[in-house]
Amino acid sequence: MANLTPNSSFSLTLRLQIPNRVGMLASVTQAIATTGGNLGQIDLIEQTRKESTRDITVDAASTEHAETIVQAVKVLPDIKLLSVYDRTFNLHRGGKISITSRIPLKSVSDLAMAYTPGVGRICTAIAQDAEEVYKLTIKQNTVAIVTDGSAVLGLGNLGPAAALPVMEGKAMLFKEFAGLDAFPICLATQDTEEIIQTVKNIAPVFGGVNLEDIAAPRCFEIEKRLREELDIPVFHDDQHGTAIVTLAALFNSLKLVNKAMAEIRIVINGAGAAGVAIARLLRKAGAEKIWMCDSKGIISTSRADLTEEKLEFAVKAQGTLAGAMQGADVFIGVSAPGVLTPEMVHSMAKDPIVFAMANPIPEIQPELISKDVAVIATGRSDYPNQINNVLAFPGVFRGALDCRAKTITTTMYLEAANAIASLVKPSDLDREHIIPSVFDERVVNAVAAAVQQAARQEGIAQN
Amino acid sequence: MANLTPNSSFSLTLRLQIPNRVGMLASVTQAIATTGGNLGQIDLIEQTRKESTRDITVDAASTEHAETIVQAVKVLPDIKLLSVYDRTFNLHRGGKISITSRIPLKSVSDLAMAYTPGVGRICTAIAQDAEEVYKLTIKQNTVAIVTDGSAVLGLGNLGPAAALPVMEGKAMLFKEFAGLDAFPICLATQDTEEIIQTVKNIAPVFGGVNLEDIAAPRCFEIEKRLREELDIPVFHDDQHGTAIVTLAALFNSLKLVNKAMAEIRIVINGAGAAGVAIARLLRKAGAEKIWMCDSKGIISTSRADLTEEKLEFAVKAQGTLAGAMQGADVFIGVSAPGVLTPEMVHSMAKDPIVFAMANPIPEIQPELISKDVAVIATGRSDYPNQINNVLAFPGVFRGALDCRAKTITTTMYLEAANAIASLVKPSDLDREHIIPSVFDERVVNAVAAAVQQAARQEGIAQN
Repeated sequence: MANLTPNSSFSLTLRLQIPNRVGMLASVTQAIATTGGNLGQIDLIEQTRKESTRDITVDAASTEHAETIVQAVKVLPDIKLLSVYDRTFNLHRGGKISITSRIPLKSVSDLAMAYTPGVGRICTAIAQDAEEVYKLTIKQNTVAIVTDGSAVLGLGNLGPAAALPVMEGKAMLFKEFAGLDAFPICLATQDTEEIIQTVKNIAPVFGGVNLEDIAAPRCFEIEKRLREELDIPVFHDDQHGTAIVTLAALFNSLKLVNKAMAEIRIVINGAGAAGVAIARLLRKAGAEKIWMCDSKGIISTSRADLTEEKLEFAVKAQGTLAGAMQGADVFIGVSAPGVLTPEMVHSMAKDPIVFAMANPIPEIQPELISKDVAVIATGRSDYPNQINNVLAFPGVFRGALDCRAKTITTTMYLEAANAIASLVKPSDLDREHIIPSVFDERVVNAVAAAVQQAARQEGIAQN
Repeated sequence: MANLTPNSSFSLTLRLQIPNRVGMLASVTQAIATTGGNLGQIDLIEQTRKESTRDITVDAASTEHAETIVQAVKVLPDIKLLSVYDRTFNLHRGGKISITSRIPLKSVSDLAMAYTPGVGRICTAIAQDAEEVYKLTIKQNTVAIVTDGSAVLGLGNLGPAAALPVMEGKAMLFKEFAGLDAFPICLATQDTEEIIQTVKNIAPVFGGVNLEDIAAPRCFEIEKRLREELDIPVFHDDQHGTAIVTLAALFNSLKLVNKAMAEIRIVINGAGAAGVAIARLLRKAGAEKIWMCDSKGIISTSRADLTEEKLEFAVKAQGTLAGAMQGADVFIGVSAPGVLTPEMVHSMAKDPIVFAMANPIPEIQPELISKDVAVIATGRSDYPNQINNVLAFPGVFRGALDCRAKTITTTMYLEAANAIASLVKPSDLDREHIIPSVFDERVVNAVAAAVQQAARQEGIAQN
């Protein structure tokens, strides 16, 4: 299991009353540092002649670690711990998104235009010409974030209510990065047909559907059917968002090590939604030697337990992940914490590329192999080379909705990956910078433009 | 058919280039006034030595009337009409609501708390204790506005897309009047069972369900079943919102004419969702003599064509609406434009009370009978005594969500009506002021408090 560094997801604010004597504040910061806490902001709240009240923000590595830090401060003589405030929990109170009016509603005249009786004229206009719904309502800018809560992050089948915080966070990202209005739809069913029917029933309000955290293999059928049966773009982000960003990172990594896509052997560990989508997109991008592994080892034609999706990638080779890794050029992990060992990495071909993307804890702790590989990337923001879907999905939907693409195609995924990769200039490209930052403002525009361009070339843009 | 006065739902802005000569602007305003347009704001946009460009806002009474006004201005010599701008349509472009983040998302640390990996801690907390969803997500403040588009305003079965502008407007009202986050769910099905199933499937995100513009009799079954099968409040606003505000208006009207609820005879014209709900609530409030009429006349026990809901109110009397009106004390119309004649009103008992609430065009034009009745109320904002649901539903949901009422009961409707009626002080009560203004800020609080109080007394408050 990888040991993680402290990070903001376990961020505390301690409110302390500290005597105004030499060395008192130092005793606090020392105690925190000694337990491995990461000191952040220190705010002065109140000061009297004798005492100061300060808010000290500390990042911990886990809930247990946070508790250790609190205890270390509590036992300090003359220091009074007034309160402990969990920043992540506090930030979630009351939810993270809100619905607001885009226009004022202060007078009888506002009401008569935005609501009855004036709104009746708008309804009639849409009833007479269905296209008008794209001009006169929120549809053109609104995305449904649909989940059944069956595969929430790496946490498993937590159900729809527990999935809601993720979907709210996703809605924030849609807004922040692409200006899109996205709303969480967390379904109280995990039945494939019922999910499909429900999404079709609520579709009139939405310009696109983002499927999220739905377990494989159900997710494949749901996406396929909704793509066929709806007239708006449908995109399963866990599959294609991950695949797009992975491919972008791989494009740039291959430039660094001077290898060609068609020649490398790639091991993908994890044959769920993300693994299958990555394999498919890598093939589309020219990869010819892909070995997929699941928890039982290499997905081999000799196995009798393969789903339709796994069969697509079955190879003659058989054996364990360790066997697959011998001589491989690239490891792509979308699996579980700590399953990759340094020994496996040492058995790879020259200039190994390792993408250990299990979330929140990667397949291998980067520090353990950083000197042995050409490139290491993870899904985490506290290491270099973060492979994060947020580089893809906002731009994909922005592009698709702007041109009213009928659907989202594999060509669009490929073009999106190219667009992301191209934002790292050759002069900036190095082993710790194979992919743009999630806060690089060029990304959403570049991806949206690539997607829109692809839609127009494929003749599926309706606007 | 009633002739309506100009109002903001047909509001135009004309941009005109007018020579700077005496009488030129006057010729424009004169032309508009002569055609019956209602002059509003006049803005100076640009001025040269020779000419002024002005935006003139005019309310018309209908689309045809708007066209007449435009023509009257177009033919004026030396006046150039640069553009005509339909304010209602313009205000709807791009939709009326938006989804926003409640917290900033500007740094890696924000992202790590609001999204992965930090959000995983919140998901886990909810998975461990289902109650936490009310604290850590949007659920506690979020309402689904659900329609199948089968009875959009008075316009009929326009379908889900054409219903969306109404639902967006409703979401604005929820926000503006009660601070609630409401989101439109416009369903691509009009099948009762499928509607019920879909709403149940999407319920995890919502703290309450507002059913809207769903045709009778389907709406009764849908509401009944959802109330039984969901653990959050369900409220069909066309029924109960209308009933609450109607009852409030009737309470105050009866004070004016000094009659008692148990003794008056009430004619309700229209036996759809609103008519049935009004009849039920009036009974609960002590009304004993209610004659309902539908398009075929009095709902009589002698008729063989009655639905379950209509049977509930069938009386021995039979005949037409005109027959029912003879000697009646109160007329409540939730039916169609112009169906009530002055003659029918003249045949009523002393001090007639007439609520002509068909929208947007009432059962009778108020001017025709204003001298013959004790009270006339409509659903319109351009006449006194507007019976508008917005007086009820924001406070009902605010109260129900604040105390996490399991359901919304008839007692709550009654208390809400009492609360609304009580806001008109005895000294302010007169025939043109039987009900508070929709912009009276006390209303939502008074209704919410009454609903919450009722929930606590009935033992169904969960918070």
